[in-house]
Amino acid sequence: MTRLGEAGEFGTLARLIRERIEHPGVIVGPGDDAAVMRPTPGMDLVATTDALVEGRHYLPEWITPAELGARLAAANLSDLAAMAAQPRWALLSIAARADHEVESLETLERGLERALADAGAVIVGGNLTAAEGPEWLSLTLLGEVARGREWTRHGARPGDLVAVTGSPGRAGAGLMLARRLGARARAEAWRPLMDAWLRPAARVALAQTLAVTGAITAAIDLSDGLLGDLGHLCEASGVGAELDAGAAGDPLLERAAAELGVPAFDLWAGPSDDYEMLLAVDPAGRAVLEAAAAVAGGAVGFVGGFTGTPGLIARVEPGGARRPLDPAGFDHFGAPPEVVGRRAVRPPRAPGRRAGGSGRRRISDSGH
Amino acid sequence: MTRLGEAGEFGTLARLIRERIEHPGVIVGPGDDAAVMRPTPGMDLVATTDALVEGRHYLPEWITPAELGARLAAANLSDLAAMAAQPRWALLSIAARADHEVESLETLERGLERALADAGAVIVGGNLTAAEGPEWLSLTLLGEVARGREWTRHGARPGDLVAVTGSPGRAGAGLMLARRLGARARAEAWRPLMDAWLRPAARVALAQTLAVTGAITAAIDLSDGLLGDLGHLCEASGVGAELDAGAAGDPLLERAAAELGVPAFDLWAGPSDDYEMLLAVDPAGRAVLEAAAAVAGGAVGFVGGFTGTPGLIARVEPGGARRPLDPAGFDHFGAPPEVVGRRAVRPPRAPGRRAGGSGRRRISDSGH
Repeated sequence: MTRLGEAGEFGTLARLIRERIEHPGVIVGPGDDAAVMRPTPGMDLVATTDALVEGRHYLPEWITPAELGARLAAANLSDLAAMAAQPRWALLSIAARADHEVESLETLERGLERALADAGAVIVGGNLTAAEGPEWLSLTLLGEVARGREWTRHGARPGDLVAVTGSPGRAGAGLMLARRLGARARAEAWRPLMDAWLRPAARVALAQTLAVTGAITAAIDLSDGLLGDLGHLCEASGVGAELDAGAAGDPLLERAAAELGVPAFDLWAGPSDDYEMLLAVDPAGRAVLEAAAAVAGGAVGFVGGFTGTPGLIARVEPGGARRPLDPAGFDHFGAPPEVVGRRAVRPPRAPGRRAGGSGRRRISDSGH
Repeated sequence: MTRLGEAGEFGTLARLIRERIEHPGVIVGPGDDAAVMRPTPGMDLVATTDALVEGRHYLPEWITPAELGARLAAANLSDLAAMAAQPRWALLSIAARADHEVESLETLERGLERALADAGAVIVGGNLTAAEGPEWLSLTLLGEVARGREWTRHGARPGDLVAVTGSPGRAGAGLMLARRLGARARAEAWRPLMDAWLRPAARVALAQTLAVTGAITAAIDLSDGLLGDLGHLCEASGVGAELDAGAAGDPLLERAAAELGVPAFDLWAGPSDDYEMLLAVDPAGRAVLEAAAAVAGGAVGFVGGFTGTPGLIARVEPGGARRPLDPAGFDHFGAPPEVVGRRAVRPPRAPGRRAGGSGRRRISDSGH
């Protein structure tokens, strides 16, 4: 066992980040002042960055180093999935305490590397620094998307359907169970929820398949929770939305809700970093989208619709009654201290605005 | 005055990162799951990442928020300069305490933004998280370079000249004076050294001009200090080097050396993050390089030569005697706790290896 303080930054980083990488498009890999990559002609570059901070975004006693690395990958991969982009290259920044075991950092890095590789991406550079406070990891992930084919948050139109991949809310429920039940949360019965929290997998391949249908008018990755992210998407698109109360019918969430003494709907729609996707779907494309999802082996559920009332998100009861919901989402500084799996905070967009938009048509105008 | 804890992450980030950016090649700017950029046809992508950690890489009592932002830019810009790349797009990650004033963060971001803009780059995305320990900033900078025209660390050959831009060692001397003299280091006499430490400017434009000459066979940015970075470059190129003792003739360093009771040569060659460049120069191209530097208004000094003895870096006395130097550089974990301006730790490269190298000729083979 070697501590970081003994191995030093250079020695440790040399063990963490492989120099001899063979990967399409990597001209100069790790070990120089910067990495050099060759873009694919006709493709646009897509970039995101996300950080995980110890104690705030993860609890070391609950997650293994390999899982933590994979989770960092998922947080970033999910962003690219929600843009319909193909992940390609990543840069890693680590701050670790001097007494951190180098072997443990290696395990973390391998977990990250493997999760990235599964999605077609490779680490091309990074740096390592000493931390005296909480440790942290920051990843920047680069990908590619065919020109004009990216999904954004601002293309949803009234009448489009609200769809979600997977089972939103499970990650947040897992976290709440861990905090409430302690070791009892490790029981087999809760495993799918703990997996959602600790071992999420981003929907990169599913996104690629769904993109082919042209039925998606807008997308956002679920990292704040369904309601919070739906709020972001509605704000960016200048629309409102309705969620079917009955769509929250995840039996596991209902069991967790009973254990926690909260409504199952709140677990489903509340703060949760599932790394699933929330999609706006042209109703005319629903059937082809469902068929594509089936082919890709991914679950897509239809849980509501978008409306022409900006700023209003409502819950529709089985009887048809509508109840407004607060789309404020979850904010670290405002909310009581709570460990969530990840917070990728981004400024909300004003309706219809698009940075750098130069009269380009939206994907939603041409995608189907 | 607003504290971060009051404004919240979303509200603060919206104030920090401009959404409506108009910049060549930015298709989707901040505010979506990821940014989308359009690469320039025929250019390769260049990427680097560097972080600054409070108390370790900067001392808040010595640097203003705007300077800190500019310094974060310089740390990353310098990496791209040393690859002969043109900076284009950046992603920012900030961890700040809840009691941090939002206005101060805005000032920091504007300082970063301005320094990036001066070099032709723009912020396209980022995130903000709460910190309980030391605050930190991490930037990933993307740029472009014409295919096969990037500088690397591994092209230096025996007989090439060792050149440096600007006045290496000044940043480290400024830091040492601040620690030794406290407020007295703010005296006008020391200002150029304090400027080098606190207000560095990366050599982006100079690098672009020098690249045209084709005389550079290898390059590295000076962030560990001349000796440390020369060691990295020698290791990557499989060569040795000699430094002329007389080249360390910076009068300001000599004055600082007297004040600090250390040899001026040690200040010149020792740990220092100057964000200058160390260059390997084909002797046949020396004259044209000097002419190009004069045109660009940048100082290039010739301070030694590369040799065919890998692993050996020697100091050459005026009388011709050679004394080996330790190129181990400076390592955060191994070294006593010391605030340096920045540490971009990267694994040393083995001689002649090149990640992703697929029979491509080195720049040094074809560059002149």
